[in-house]
Amino acid sequence: MIFKKHCRVLLALILSGVSCVVAATPTQKPNILLVLADDLGYNDVGFNGSKDIITPNLDALAAQGTTFSEAYVAHPFCGPSRAALLTGRYPHKIGSQFNLPIRGSFVGVPTSETFIAQVMQDAGYFTGAMGKWHLGDAPQYHPNKRGFEEFYGFLGGGHNYFPAQFEKAYNERVKQGVTNIFEYLTPLEHNGKEVRETEYITDALSREAVNFVTKAAKNDKPFFLYLAYNAPHVPLEAKQEDMAMFPNIKDKKRKTYAGMVYAVDRGVGRIVETLKANNQFDNTLIVFMSDNGGKLGQGASNYPLKEGKGSVYEGGFRTPMLMHWPQQVAAGKQFEHPVLALDLYPTFAALGGASLPANNKLDGKNIWQDLQANQNPHQDELIYVLRHRDGFSDAAVRRNEFKAVKYGKQDWQLFNIEKDISEQHDLSASNSLMLNDMVAEMEKWTWDNVQPLWFHISEEGANWRLKGMPRFDQTFKTSISSTESD
Amino acid sequence: MIFKKHCRVLLALILSGVSCVVAATPTQKPNILLVLADDLGYNDVGFNGSKDIITPNLDALAAQGTTFSEAYVAHPFCGPSRAALLTGRYPHKIGSQFNLPIRGSFVGVPTSETFIAQVMQDAGYFTGAMGKWHLGDAPQYHPNKRGFEEFYGFLGGGHNYFPAQFEKAYNERVKQGVTNIFEYLTPLEHNGKEVRETEYITDALSREAVNFVTKAAKNDKPFFLYLAYNAPHVPLEAKQEDMAMFPNIKDKKRKTYAGMVYAVDRGVGRIVETLKANNQFDNTLIVFMSDNGGKLGQGASNYPLKEGKGSVYEGGFRTPMLMHWPQQVAAGKQFEHPVLALDLYPTFAALGGASLPANNKLDGKNIWQDLQANQNPHQDELIYVLRHRDGFSDAAVRRNEFKAVKYGKQDWQLFNIEKDISEQHDLSASNSLMLNDMVAEMEKWTWDNVQPLWFHISEEGANWRLKGMPRFDQTFKTSISSTESD
Amino acid sequence: MIFKKHCRVLLALILSGVSCVVAATPTQKPNILLVLADDLGYNDVGFNGSKDIITPNLDALAAQGTTFSEAYVAHPFCGPSRAALLTGRYPHKIGSQFNLPIRGSFVGVPTSETFIAQVMQDAGYFTGAMGKWHLGDAPQYHPNKRGFEEFYGFLGGGHNYFPAQFEKAYNERVKQGVTNIFEYLTPLEHNGKEVRETEYITDALSREAVNFVTKAAKNDKPFFLYLAYNAPHVPLEAKQEDMAMFPNIKDKKRKTYAGMVYAVDRGVGRIVETLKANNQFDNTLIVFMSDNGGKLGQGASNYPLKEGKGSVYEGGFRTPMLMHWPQQVAAGKQFEHPVLALDLYPTFAALGGASLPANNKLDGKNIWQDLQANQNPHQDELIYVLRHRDGFSDAAVRRNEFKAVKYGKQDWQLFNIEKDISEQHDLSASNSLMLNDMVAEMEKWTWDNVQPLWFHISEEGANWRLKGMPRFDQTFKTSISSTESD
Repeated sequence: MIFKKHCRVLLALILSGVSCVVAATPTQKPNILLVLADDLGYNDVGFNGSKDIITPNLDALAAQGTTFSEAYVAHPFCGPSRAALLTGRYPHKIGSQFNLPIRGSFVGVPTSETFIAQVMQDAGYFTGAMGKWHLGDAPQYHPNKRGFEEFYGFLGGGHNYFPAQFEKAYNERVKQGVTNIFEYLTPLEHNGKEVRETEYITDALSREAVNFVTKAAKNDKPFFLYLAYNAPHVPLEAKQEDMAMFPNIKDKKRKTYAGMVYAVDRGVGRIVETLKANNQFDNTLIVFMSDNGGKLGQGASNYPLKEGKGSVYEGGFRTPMLMHWPQQVAAGKQFEHPVLALDLYPTFAALGGASLPANNKLDGKNIWQDLQANQNPHQDELIYVLRHRDGFSDAAVRRNEFKAVKYGKQDWQLFNIEKDISEQHDLSASNSLMLNDMVAEMEKWTWDNVQPLWFHISEEGANWRLKGMPRFDQTFKTSISSTESD
Repeated sequence: MIFKKHCRVLLALILSGVSCVVAATPTQKPNILLVLADDLGYNDVGFNGSKDIITPNLDALAAQGTTFSEAYVAHPFCGPSRAALLTGRYPHKIGSQFNLPIRGSFVGVPTSETFIAQVMQDAGYFTGAMGKWHLGDAPQYHPNKRGFEEFYGFLGGGHNYFPAQFEKAYNERVKQGVTNIFEYLTPLEHNGKEVRETEYITDALSREAVNFVTKAAKNDKPFFLYLAYNAPHVPLEAKQEDMAMFPNIKDKKRKTYAGMVYAVDRGVGRIVETLKANNQFDNTLIVFMSDNGGKLGQGASNYPLKEGKGSVYEGGFRTPMLMHWPQQVAAGKQFEHPVLALDLYPTFAALGGASLPANNKLDGKNIWQDLQANQNPHQDELIYVLRHRDGFSDAAVRRNEFKAVKYGKQDWQLFNIEKDISEQHDLSASNSLMLNDMVAEMEKWTWDNVQPLWFHISEEGANWRLKGMPRFDQTFKTSISSTESD
Repeated sequence: MIFKKHCRVLLALILSGVSCVVAATPTQKPNILLVLADDLGYNDVGFNGSKDIITPNLDALAAQGTTFSEAYVAHPFCGPSRAALLTGRYPHKIGSQFNLPIRGSFVGVPTSETFIAQVMQDAGYFTGAMGKWHLGDAPQYHPNKRGFEEFYGFLGGGHNYFPAQFEKAYNERVKQGVTNIFEYLTPLEHNGKEVRETEYITDALSREAVNFVTKAAKNDKPFFLYLAYNAPHVPLEAKQEDMAMFPNIKDKKRKTYAGMVYAVDRGVGRIVETLKANNQFDNTLIVFMSDNGGKLGQGASNYPLKEGKGSVYEGGFRTPMLMHWPQQVAAGKQFEHPVLALDLYPTFAALGGASLPANNKLDGKNIWQDLQANQNPHQDELIYVLRHRDGFSDAAVRRNEFKAVKYGKQDWQLFNIEKDISEQHDLSASNSLMLNDMVAEMEKWTWDNVQPLWFHISEEGANWRLKGMPRFDQTFKTSISSTESD
């Protein structure tokens, strides 16, 4: 009812021709630094309570800023989550539900979508992207074409970390005449030009971020920097000195993973120093989060969340998150309401005084006022996660304290996610009315999903077609009797 | 051959750059009142010979106007038929082959289509829609966005009739926290704002139509009013006083249905009075018809037509129809040639002196001249009906006196529909050449059909994909041997 | 690696905003005459070594011009090959992978594609098309709407040759009331107007080409003429006098076919005479080729190529080709590098000083400089052929001297196509690395293929859907282990 009412009010506004004016509280346009880790577990930063991994620089930002206990990305794995982050749309609405084809392609996130970088650039920001792209290799999808004035990194979905090793492997393949070389091995690039990187990749990206921040400080534009570390995504490759910080970790994977996270933290520290040295620290909003949950079996921990990367349980898409901005973001607080990676687009646009593109449909909202007021920005609203698998779809939907989960062939479950963060106590039996209502609302949300524009491998595409996907008939089947009304 | 010739002439015209000028005979722009009943049977109005249902006001209009014995809608059920009526396109050409998702959605008739209301509004008409919409719930599909200045009614595919009852049911669900409430129960709205209706819905819509006509009479614009009663669509709910008009009907459903039709007729009477009182009656073209055939088992009669709502036999898509306009439409005549709901768009546009949108493809034609001349506007042309079912498609095509029917898994049948209105005598055996020709022409027509943009329920969509729909390989299989020519 | 490097350079160019300027060597805009034969075998012209078929006029052009031993069309059958020729795109990129529906339709090559004729017309050329169209029957797809000022011929995929016969057959059907008449029998047209042709069709098309050339000589525009003979496509129908030229051929089909080819050659001779008589011969680039390989069992020979029309072996899509232009194209030479029908679009545009449409993606390239320099225009590049069959896809990809072939359910084979033109010696066992690389590159190329916009018959469309086509999971399956990187 409340939702319906909101809809009507919105409709009335739209019909009456009132245009949406974005109200940004701060008077000066801040620099915005978005640091994205890759496959970082919920429990793998100090500020979220890790017992074994230390992240002193992130923890310092957390101590002087706000952490978020219920930060959700839009998809439990990389490509779709990043597409959502930069477009402000659920990946299912823009055909980006799958990772890009593993052996390359000429497809990418549709150019009909305007990236947040473009919006910021149009508003006078100096924009840069460092690190992993994973949103399209072909020229029209290049970061430089999506609003990033500067790009340093790699276009693929990941990368090996030690140049001496990957350069050797790459050159061997070239020598053999191979042209379709695994993207984790290819040379990095700067604005479309191949470069010969020599540093450990995490350090290289930190270095480039430092350079960007330094350069930005010299011009009079605010900056928007998207620093997308590929760490601690596999392959697990850490520097000895970083692993040496964790003498008590015995598990080899965990130790390597910890070293990789530490390198990220080290990089963040260097950037903070640079911001301070350039007198930009007080005017910079720093946001740190991961693109999805940690990958189980690869060194990560999402404790106390259930499962990990790929899952519609919390471990798949709830990630560590912090915001830091002196005087503007409350220091030492934890924000305990849900926030979405999808919210960053409209929030950044508002802070930057940017205009949203005409006819732009965004799935998130500007959360700035609610953040200041410590209010739930998504009260009574629905938060979705939907992952297509081989012949069926996993789905979950949260509203306030309740989360409904459809996992594999199991029936829908219902959890009180505020009291039961580990999703252990199924309340569906005693709450069938609410469960059915949430399932119906999620099914309603799916009708304007579009067909995937690509798949990760051709087998996935063939199975999609052969098995009549997305099979929402099964996904949203409940005890509700459907009412015919033709 | 004749058809081919027409095509060539048309082609030559197009190629020679002659632009289409719409020639409207009457010099003054008339008001246009389109009254649409919902699931009204062919035999369920007095002017079509009903023995038990009385419709004095409609009959009076019929007596002073022209009735149509062969009026066809574009689809045998609601949503697609209405989409066709307002866009002038067969629903299969615009992805609107199915009713909208029953539990709501954010999809609707594509905004790339221009509704007749928009065309009329652009030509200076004051436009209004009252009643059932069923063409999209999301803001961009709202009547106010499709050319209707005024809208009063409900966006869904139907509605309960007694406010005291549906308001109670609605409030109970709201109280339980349900947000996805069956659309038949939700409050009505006026231009996007919720209203609290208190009258029996048919009377409420008649009241609003009266108000609209009254308001229209006060400005100097002609009006275009689309009055879409949901009666006598289920649920069968009539006022006691209306049922009391039919003491001789014993069947409860039929009696209720009759009462519902009577309420519609009563409303038409009120509007006619209002038109007269405002001195607008002589300058108003009134068109009355149904969106599809009556639903068997729910009180309707399509006698002498075969089957009912949903069928590609005549009972599914031939409906009662009348036109009334003093001095302009012949009084007391019956027009015995086929006319299409698809013809109304270009005919109304012509009468209103409106320009058709550039690149607009319309599937019907301006029938005004042929109506005046009592000539068949569709001589030698093909009239199609196509309904997709679970794993197969029903189809029918009419040309002049012949109608070919593909029903379920049966072979194609051929009827002389002028002599055999009840489709009892299959002539296929002795007319295989003509039958095959008509089937081939219909198959030709299907190639630029588009995939459905939505389905009524998710099961329907899953089956569509799993069963390789639309399965035209089976639908158009005849004894013709296909000729390869690659 | 080399390919990757090219990509990067291209990307850098695009990103740096350098616009593509087409450099045409010759200073004067030449007339361009593109003569396309239909299903002509690789071995069925004198200049390609035919032992039994004589083509004196083509041979004379060949002797004074350049022949091409490795000319590839983009598809092994008619419709898609022609769509590629005129749009410059692989048919799979524009939904034109299949021949148009055999019993007619209102679909055609998307109007979002700009035909080469339009590009030339915009550059000041007088443009004409004579003969077979096969790219869309509906008005918006008519040659006159795609850049051809003059059109004489037929819109379908083929035609019978003797007017006395096809006119009779056509009239009989008209008399019977048939409207969906096989397109091989329908009257020819001139700019959308039906004409009554009386000559043997090949002669009629030659006559119209002569008329066009004569008319063109009288105005000051250069001309672009697309002369698309339907000969020697079935039905096998030749004039007695032409067959009489081949007394030594005993096989009836071969003899008829030879007569059909001879008529084409005779026509080319007449046009050459006309060009000379009008003093245009020296300023005319003549290109002659076929739309695909000869059809086995219908009189054609593709010797020494393997298989014929429809196949991804060389016989399917390598065709005879010559270019003639005094002083500009080397006389008496054979060009022994691959050239593509796809190259003609950008090459013609360059020669005509035409601008390519903005955002135009072309799959071929201007080969003029490489032709002059006798260099391989496609060094290290990939040349694709892909044919969808019932439930699987045949594919082949060539790079330099190697060609990989996926045929039916067989494993991928690898041939050294320069040394093994008949594709007899599979080298896959000893070259798995290269084979796998080429297969991976071809799979990469497929991801931006689009779904077919039509099929030849409805059965084909139903099977496409039921069998989860294009089944690239099977097509591109090799011994490569797929690497996951989500």
